[in-house]
Amino acid sequence: MITTCVYVEVKPEFINEFIKESEANHNEAIKEPGNLRFDILQLAENPCMFMLYEAYISEEAAAAHKTTAHYFKWRENVEKMMAKPRNGIKYNILLPKTF
Amino acid sequence: MITTCVYVEVKPEFINEFIKESEANHNEAIKEPGNLRFDILQLAENPCMFMLYEAYISEEAAAAHKTTAHYFKWRENVEKMMAKPRNGIKYNILLPKTF
Repeated sequence: MITTCVYVEVKPEFINEFIKESEANHNEAIKEPGNLRFDILQLAENPCMFMLYEAYISEEAAAAHKTTAHYFKWRENVEKMMAKPRNGIKYNILLPKTF
Repeated sequence: MITTCVYVEVKPEFINEFIKESEANHNEAIKEPGNLRFDILQLAENPCMFMLYEAYISEEAAAAHKTTAHYFKWRENVEKMMAKPRNGIKYNILLPKTF
C-alpha cells in the first residue's frame, strides 16, 4: 500500500477554481477499485498551498489512476492554475495494515 | 477537520524501534473519539524518513491527542531516535466532507 503526497502551489486568483476541479477528481478517484484515500488538504497558514493525499492498494492501482479520464481532465484544467510545477512524494503505508 | 503531517527523520539504527513505538501510538490514537486517520508512512526512497498523517475532527480533538498517555509514551521513547527535531505541518481538510 502506498501514498503519494502531491504538493501544489496555486496562484491566488485560482484557489476556488482549483478546489472545484480537485473535488471533481476526488469524487471519481474514490470510486477507483484500488483507491484507499484521496484527501484534499489546504495549508492552514497559506490558502495557496494544497496537498493531495492519494493512497492506493498498490503501485499498479496508483499508476492506473493516471490513466483515468478524471485525472486527465484535472491535470489539463489545473495546469494554468499552478504557481510552479507540483511535486509528488511517494511513501509506503506501514499503518493501518488493513482498510 | 484538520490534519497534522508530522515529518520525522530517524537515525538508521532506530528504524525498527521507531516503527514499533509508532504502532503502539497508532493503535491507541485510532480509538480516540475525534480521530479520523492516524497513518504511519515511510518514505519510499529513504527508510529513515517517516510521515505521521494525523487527521482529527477539530483543533480541540487534535490538541486532546497531545494530552494522552500513549502520546506522552511515544514522545518520550522516540526522542533519542530522531536525527533532528520533527516538524508538524497543519492542513485543513477540504475533502472528504464526511468520514
